[in-house]
Amino acid sequence: MAQVQRMSRLMVKTLRDDPADAETLNHKLLVRAGYVRRSSAGIWSWLPLGKKVLENITRVVREEMDAIGGQEVLLPALLPKEAYDASGRYEEYGDLLFRLKDRKGADYLLGPTHEEIFTQIVKDQCTSYKDLPVILYQIQTKYRDEARPRAGVLRGREFQMKDSYSFDTTDEGLTESYALHRDAYIRIFERLGLDHRIVSAVSGAMGGSASEEFLAPAPAGEDTFVDCPACEYAANTEAVTFRATPADASHPAVEELDTPDTPTIETLAAHLGVPASATLKNLLVKVDGEIVAVGVPGDREVDLGKLGEHLAPAVVELVTAEDFVDRPDLVRGYVGPQGLEKVRYIADPRIAPGTAWVTGANKPDTHAKNVVCGRDFEVDDYLDVVVVRDGDPCPKCGTGLKLDRAIEIGHIFQLGRKFADAFQLDVLGQNGKPVRVTMGSYGIGVSRAVAALAEQTADDKGLCWPREIAPADVHVVAAGKALQTELAIEVAEKLSAAGLRVLVDERPGVSPGVKFTDAELIGVPQILVAGRRAAEGVVELKDRRTGEREELTVSEAIARLSA
Amino acid sequence: MAQVQRMSRLMVKTLRDDPADAETLNHKLLVRAGYVRRSSAGIWSWLPLGKKVLENITRVVREEMDAIGGQEVLLPALLPKEAYDASGRYEEYGDLLFRLKDRKGADYLLGPTHEEIFTQIVKDQCTSYKDLPVILYQIQTKYRDEARPRAGVLRGREFQMKDSYSFDTTDEGLTESYALHRDAYIRIFERLGLDHRIVSAVSGAMGGSASEEFLAPAPAGEDTFVDCPACEYAANTEAVTFRATPADASHPAVEELDTPDTPTIETLAAHLGVPASATLKNLLVKVDGEIVAVGVPGDREVDLGKLGEHLAPAVVELVTAEDFVDRPDLVRGYVGPQGLEKVRYIADPRIAPGTAWVTGANKPDTHAKNVVCGRDFEVDDYLDVVVVRDGDPCPKCGTGLKLDRAIEIGHIFQLGRKFADAFQLDVLGQNGKPVRVTMGSYGIGVSRAVAALAEQTADDKGLCWPREIAPADVHVVAAGKALQTELAIEVAEKLSAAGLRVLVDERPGVSPGVKFTDAELIGVPQILVAGRRAAEGVVELKDRRTGEREELTVSEAIARLSA
Repeated sequence: MAQVQRMSRLMVKTLRDDPADAETLNHKLLVRAGYVRRSSAGIWSWLPLGKKVLENITRVVREEMDAIGGQEVLLPALLPKEAYDASGRYEEYGDLLFRLKDRKGADYLLGPTHEEIFTQIVKDQCTSYKDLPVILYQIQTKYRDEARPRAGVLRGREFQMKDSYSFDTTDEGLTESYALHRDAYIRIFERLGLDHRIVSAVSGAMGGSASEEFLAPAPAGEDTFVDCPACEYAANTEAVTFRATPADASHPAVEELDTPDTPTIETLAAHLGVPASATLKNLLVKVDGEIVAVGVPGDREVDLGKLGEHLAPAVVELVTAEDFVDRPDLVRGYVGPQGLEKVRYIADPRIAPGTAWVTGANKPDTHAKNVVCGRDFEVDDYLDVVVVRDGDPCPKCGTGLKLDRAIEIGHIFQLGRKFADAFQLDVLGQNGKPVRVTMGSYGIGVSRAVAALAEQTADDKGLCWPREIAPADVHVVAAGKALQTELAIEVAEKLSAAGLRVLVDERPGVSPGVKFTDAELIGVPQILVAGRRAAEGVVELKDRRTGEREELTVSEAIARLSA
Repeated sequence: MAQVQRMSRLMVKTLRDDPADAETLNHKLLVRAGYVRRSSAGIWSWLPLGKKVLENITRVVREEMDAIGGQEVLLPALLPKEAYDASGRYEEYGDLLFRLKDRKGADYLLGPTHEEIFTQIVKDQCTSYKDLPVILYQIQTKYRDEARPRAGVLRGREFQMKDSYSFDTTDEGLTESYALHRDAYIRIFERLGLDHRIVSAVSGAMGGSASEEFLAPAPAGEDTFVDCPACEYAANTEAVTFRATPADASHPAVEELDTPDTPTIETLAAHLGVPASATLKNLLVKVDGEIVAVGVPGDREVDLGKLGEHLAPAVVELVTAEDFVDRPDLVRGYVGPQGLEKVRYIADPRIAPGTAWVTGANKPDTHAKNVVCGRDFEVDDYLDVVVVRDGDPCPKCGTGLKLDRAIEIGHIFQLGRKFADAFQLDVLGQNGKPVRVTMGSYGIGVSRAVAALAEQTADDKGLCWPREIAPADVHVVAAGKALQTELAIEVAEKLSAAGLRVLVDERPGVSPGVKFTDAELIGVPQILVAGRRAAEGVVELKDRRTGEREELTVSEAIARLSA
C-alpha cells in the first residue's frame, strides 16, 4: 500500500505565471505545476510529481517489453570512442555527440544510442544460432548535444529513453522481431493514452531498410507528417513518395529562347507567361565531391535533408563558385539536363518520361522549351526530394494529403547487417557455418512521452493525465477548516487502504480557491473535495477532464473510486 | 505474475575460468555467472541476471526511503560547472571529476555527488519554514574518474547510487533526519542480508560534523576499520581516537646526549638501549605554507591522510630542503619540541602531559632525554594522527582493537550549513526572519552493494544470493531427456502461477552436470531438480547454501516453496 502523499510535505511549488522562456504548452505546464525544473539548457531535474509520471511510463514500457520476451539490461552511458570508430559514428554524429577524455587522456563519449555496444555484447555472449533470436532492452539516460534544445523536456540534451535491439539469424526472424516491437509499441501508446500515428520513415544515418515512426499529433511537435483523409496512408514528410504516370503526348522539337534578366523561376515564368510548374529547375550539388544535378518542377523546393537521407552515407554539399572553374559545360543559372552528359542527373518523379519542360539551355541568358524527358534527356535516378505540400496527392489513393505537426515518440528500424558487418557479428549456423546476424533497433522517448502526453491532454486549467500515468489516482482537497481537513485526511487514508494512490491537500492556511487551482493545474484525474457538507460526511467528486461534479457520501465515493 | 525465465532464451553465458584480470571474488563470480561484462576500465554492462539483482536492491532502497518520507526525484548527471564553482568542489575534486565541454564551449561535469544541485533545487522550491523539513532522494548513475578502478563493480567509474539530502531549519531537525536515515539504512542492509557495522567516520572533504559509515566486512574491502571484541565500539581507522591519562610521575631534568650516527629512530633506540616507543618523533609538515611539527611516539607512523582530514580545508604538504633556508631553529633529524617556540606543535594523545621522552635537542648529532610534556614543552593541538594498529586500546573500554577490512556500503553525514552558506539557502523562519538551512547528505552504493553481497555470500561453488535479492526465487533444472524437461517446465509454470519468480533450465543438449554447475554458479537460493524419479512425479529440492537435499512430490515442492 502506497503512503498518502500530503501536499503540506510534498516538494511542489506551483507557479501562477508561465516561465519567461517557455513557448510550448508542456514546458509551461510541467514547470508551473512543479513537475520539472531546468538545470541547464536542455537538461532537466525531475521533481517528485514528475518523477512519479516518469516512473509510471517506465513501468508500462517495461511490462510490454517483458511481454514480448525482451530481456532488460543496463549498459553504460559513458562509452569508449573505439566502438563508435568501428561504426564510423564517432565522426558522423558531429557536434551532436558529447565527447570527453578521462584522466589518462583516453577518449570517451556519452551514448546517444547504443547499437555499437549491444552488438559487442551479443558478439561476446552469443555464439550459436541456438542463442538467437534475442531482444535486449534498457531504460536509460541518453545524451545528445542538440544545437537548439527546446520545448522543455520534449527535446532535451539529457533524456530518458527505452532502447531495444533485436538479433536474428534470418531476414524472416528480423521481420518477426520488428512485428513484435510494432505490436508492443501500439499497446504501450494505447496504455499511455497517447493518440498516435504509425508512419513510414526514411531510416537516415542508421542505415537499413524498413522503418516506421510513431508520431503523437501535437502543435508543439517538431515533425511534419502527412495524413491521407481518404485512406490509411500516413508518412513522415521525408518518406512521402510521388507516383507519376508517364505522359505519352507528342511534343514539338526543342526551341531555344532568348531570356535576358530572368535570374529566378519567378522572373522566367513571368517573362514567358507560363506557370512556374511548367519550368524545370536544376539544382547543382556536390555528392562526395562530384557535381550532380537535381531536377524538380520550378514551383517546388528541393528538401536537402531528404536528398541527404537518400544518398547517405555519401555527403551532400552545395556547390560554390570554385566548383565551376574548368567546367564550361555548367552555365550557372541556365543549366538544362539536355546535353549535360558529364553530370549525373537525379530528378523528382514529377519529371516523368514524356513530360515537356521549359529549362536552361546551358548558354548564358538562354532557356529552352519543349525539352522532353526520355527524348531530349535521360534521368539517372528518380528520388523523392521535393518539400511536400498540403494537398499533394496520396501515393496510395491520389486524394490530397493533409500536413500535420507531431512529436516523434517511437521509432522502429530494421537495421539489417550494417552494425553486424562493422563488428563481424557472426554466430555458428545450423549447418556448422558462420551466419552474419541481422539487427533491429527500436526506441521510445520516455521523458519525451511525458511532454507528448502533456501536450495532448492538457486544457486551459492545466495538466490532465490519464489515470495509469497520473502521479496519483485521486487528489483529495480539504476545502475549509479543521472539520474539512480531518475528513479529507480520513478519506485519503481509506482510499489508500483500498489500494489507491492518493494525494491530499491539507495545507494549513491555504485557501480553498488556491487548492482548487493547484489541483486542476497538477492534473490528477479525480478530485475529491471535503467542503461545505463535510459535517454530514458528504464530499464532492469532480472529474478533472469533464468537470462533472457529484455529491457522494464518503463510502459511496470510496466505492466509486476503487471500482 | 512474472513470466518463467527459460535458460534457453536468457542471455547468460557462464564461464568455467576466472577472467584473467580479476582479483576479487565478486569480480570473478559476477563475470563467470554472466551478471556483468566490462565495457571499459571501471565501467560495466549489467546483463539480464545482473540487472535483476540491481533492480531488487533498488526496490528495497526505494521502499525504505519512502517509508521515512523521502521524496524521489531524478536530477541530471550532466551538470554545469558553475554550481560546483560556488562550492569550490570543481577544483577540489581534481582528477576525480569527469569534465567536458558542450558544442558552445560551456563547461560541464558528470556528477560525482549532488549536494550543490539539491541545494539549488531547495532554494528554488522552498521559501518558508513550513516547507521544511524535506528529505529528497534519487537512485541514479554517478561518475568518478578513479585512478585505479578495481574489484569489478566494487569501485567503478560509472556506478549506481542512492543519494539523499535532508533540509532542516534547526540542528535538532538535522539530528532527527539523520536518525531517520540511520534507521532506514539499518533496515535496508538487514533486508539485503548484508552483514554490516556502523562506524564513526571523519567526514573529510564534505565538511560537517557527525558522520558514520556502514561497512560490510569482506576481505576484498578497501576500507580498514577497527572492531572492539569486548564492547560495541567500531570505527573507521581514520576516526579511531586514543584516550591517554596524564602521567603524574616526577622526572629528572632534561639531559643532552651525544648521539652521532643515529639518523633513524631504530639507530637511536639501539644506540641508547631504549624501546622505540620511548622516543618522540617530530615530523615537520607545511600547513597552508606554514611549518608545523607533529609529534608521535617513535614506534608509530603519522597517517598523513588522517592529518589532512583533521586540518581540512587547510592544505598539508611535506617539507622540502628549501623550507629550511633562514630557519636555523629547525635542525633536520634533531628536532625536539622543547624551545621550539616559533613552530605550532601538534601531537598524538599518547604524548600526554607528564610523560617523558627521548627526542631531538635541536642541535646536530644531539638528542635529549627526560623531556617532559607540560614541563619542558607545550602541545598546541592534540590530534589522532597515528596509523592505527591491531591491538591498540579501545577508546571506550581499553580492550585491544581488531583491525578488519570492509566495503563501505553506506555513508551518512551531518553536513550542517556548508552548502547552505555557499548558496545562501535561507527560508523565512517562524519569527519572520530568514533562517539558514542545515543539511544532511546520505549515500548507498547500489551497484557496490551487489559486489558486497557477492563477496559475503558466495562460496566455492559460486554466487549464493539472499532470496529477496536473487534474480529468481527458484531455479528448476531439467536433468534428463524429454520427460524431465516436460516436468521441469510444468513445475516452473505452476510455481510461477503461485507467485514465485522462476528460472528453468530446459536447454536441449546440455548435460545435467553442466546444468547443476551453472545453477550453483548463478546462485538462486533454491534449486529444484526434475531427474531420476520424474516419471513418478518426484523432484529433488536442494538448498543452494546448505546443500541439503530432499525428495518431494511436485505438489509438496510447490507448497514448500510458496510457504
